[in-house]
Amino acid sequence: MDRLIRDYITKLKTQNLLLPAWYENGKIIMLNQLELPAENYLALSSVEEIARAIQDMTIRGSGAIALAGCYGILMAAFHTNGDRQKIIEAGELLKATRPTAVNLNKTVTALTENLSGYQSQALLGEIQHRVIQVIEKQLAAERKIGEYGAALVQDGETIMTICHAGAVAGFGYGGRTLSVFRKAIESGKKIQVIACETRPYFQGARITAWELKKFGIPVSLITDNMAGAIMQKGMVSRVITGSDRIAANGDTANKIGTYMLALAAKDNGIPFHISTSKYNIDLTAKSGAEIEIELRDSSEVLFIHGRKITAAGIDALYPAFDITPSEDISAIITENGVLVKPYAQKLAELCEGSFGNE
Amino acid sequence: MDRLIRDYITKLKTQNLLLPAWYENGKIIMLNQLELPAENYLALSSVEEIARAIQDMTIRGSGAIALAGCYGILMAAFHTNGDRQKIIEAGELLKATRPTAVNLNKTVTALTENLSGYQSQALLGEIQHRVIQVIEKQLAAERKIGEYGAALVQDGETIMTICHAGAVAGFGYGGRTLSVFRKAIESGKKIQVIACETRPYFQGARITAWELKKFGIPVSLITDNMAGAIMQKGMVSRVITGSDRIAANGDTANKIGTYMLALAAKDNGIPFHISTSKYNIDLTAKSGAEIEIELRDSSEVLFIHGRKITAAGIDALYPAFDITPSEDISAIITENGVLVKPYAQKLAELCEGSFGNE
Repeated sequence: MDRLIRDYITKLKTQNLLLPAWYENGKIIMLNQLELPAENYLALSSVEEIARAIQDMTIRGSGAIALAGCYGILMAAFHTNGDRQKIIEAGELLKATRPTAVNLNKTVTALTENLSGYQSQALLGEIQHRVIQVIEKQLAAERKIGEYGAALVQDGETIMTICHAGAVAGFGYGGRTLSVFRKAIESGKKIQVIACETRPYFQGARITAWELKKFGIPVSLITDNMAGAIMQKGMVSRVITGSDRIAANGDTANKIGTYMLALAAKDNGIPFHISTSKYNIDLTAKSGAEIEIELRDSSEVLFIHGRKITAAGIDALYPAFDITPSEDISAIITENGVLVKPYAQKLAELCEGSFGNE
Repeated sequence: MDRLIRDYITKLKTQNLLLPAWYENGKIIMLNQLELPAENYLALSSVEEIARAIQDMTIRGSGAIALAGCYGILMAAFHTNGDRQKIIEAGELLKATRPTAVNLNKTVTALTENLSGYQSQALLGEIQHRVIQVIEKQLAAERKIGEYGAALVQDGETIMTICHAGAVAGFGYGGRTLSVFRKAIESGKKIQVIACETRPYFQGARITAWELKKFGIPVSLITDNMAGAIMQKGMVSRVITGSDRIAANGDTANKIGTYMLALAAKDNGIPFHISTSKYNIDLTAKSGAEIEIELRDSSEVLFIHGRKITAAGIDALYPAFDITPSEDISAIITENGVLVKPYAQKLAELCEGSFGNE
């Protein structure tokens, strides 16, 4: 029943990937990203468990949660013996875990639409076929982002990054930013990375540094406020970060701290790039001013390892993202090629499908 | 024997100060700043214990360690019954704890020089008299910095700061930066403060936020990488930080992260000030390029509450200071008045004693 996906996973495991989740013996094995850098894996067997893992951030990153969506549909298909209606309901459950997650939404829709021509075993085969296609396409996109980005990087560079836009936030090759580092190394360039720890959640310290070490790429950790000094000392040749959402003019919302990296890079004459996918471009926002930066619950700022870092009765603020103005971004690296300023026309073409090479 | 200092401390305690250390019943009571915001006090009775407290950061901040130097000399005088030679030796021990601390060095020298005209009881009286003079002068300087700085602040402002340049880093009024906040409040202006947590040592979270709360000044905590987003949202009207060392042209070395605050302030049209004392001006450094930023032992970056924040085998970098270029500083607040650009001539005059009002 599961031969297609079994054989495919066996093949994937030979490709030096760092998979955030995979199918194995009727279960989904999932890296618990809440506990990184400790490497603990969970075995999930129902759609509900997978939906909960998306909601509680056991799996995180726009690519990785789309992958979790794939496996949720696969589990639903296997467990219902290919009951189309129940598979569609499972898709609704999965999409509801993150209503704003475009990649998850599109992926689940693609897996569950137009299934009426298939029955039971054929349907199970078709679902496996579609899941494999999604994974193949997304891994190809990660490799493409990596190739386009790596072409910008010279031998011997030291590249700074913040947060985590890597393999376990994606489909397993290197997500967006870490794909660039991997492809630079694979093409024979020596590089090293400086990872900002990324308060308050420490994604840089916990995940990016861990993942780079896994891939054998030299990495040094800094606190976020050290980035400027490190650039002043001439220790950084390039900054590359991921992106949460890119407005029509190129203004980019990304993890809090990205904007100040861009300012420090500009002040020190260092190229600053965003790595992204066309899925993150939002042409309905004309500029960064139209992207709302929500203030989140601040307890994550106040507690570390369950211990309060300040006195009783003191409050905190928690904007999760900031906006880097497009004029401070020297290039946007995508799966279809590298965009340079001015961005508006090229971003529109990218979304239409007329930019670069698919 | 100790009447002078006893009576003086009694008077100090009526002045709404937050003393980092004081004399009481033959001992020096010292706030253990390593444990803030937990408020634990130690009772020290020997020069050696006080020297150790300076070395292990139980007491910290250039003002506060000079105050510890005062009390070290006082203890030496009492314990030796006014033995001049032993008091001078105690001074050497205290100065050796921080060879580069100008304020400590000058203070201890002033307390121990020209003592040959005094014998036993008269010498004990003279030492007490000198200690009281030092404290009075330094508290007056803190209040002056506060007054000059507060004159720049409008009613209703929200002021951002980083690290801690407050009462327990000084002689107890408000050090440098917190003196400005206190004087603004005392002059009837409503202000609130946004404190950057200040990784890796969390001085902003542990000390500044705690101290502001003690003084009844509203404060919100942020992680250092949030400063830019908070400014983008229009939530900050002014940035004021302390300073470690100011070069002849106004370039300022201060706690890591200060430089990026200055860049974000500039990008958002927000005034950025340094609060300082003439003791921190170093005319031998022509510009920030001549101030060496040491890279410190990085374990403080890698561990929080004794727990490692990243995977095994990953290194960190730890530059403790950065350089804010003078052109990004809109005013330098001192005990003799406020300096505006260009700074070189005014800084030279300040050091000569010909700038502003003593």
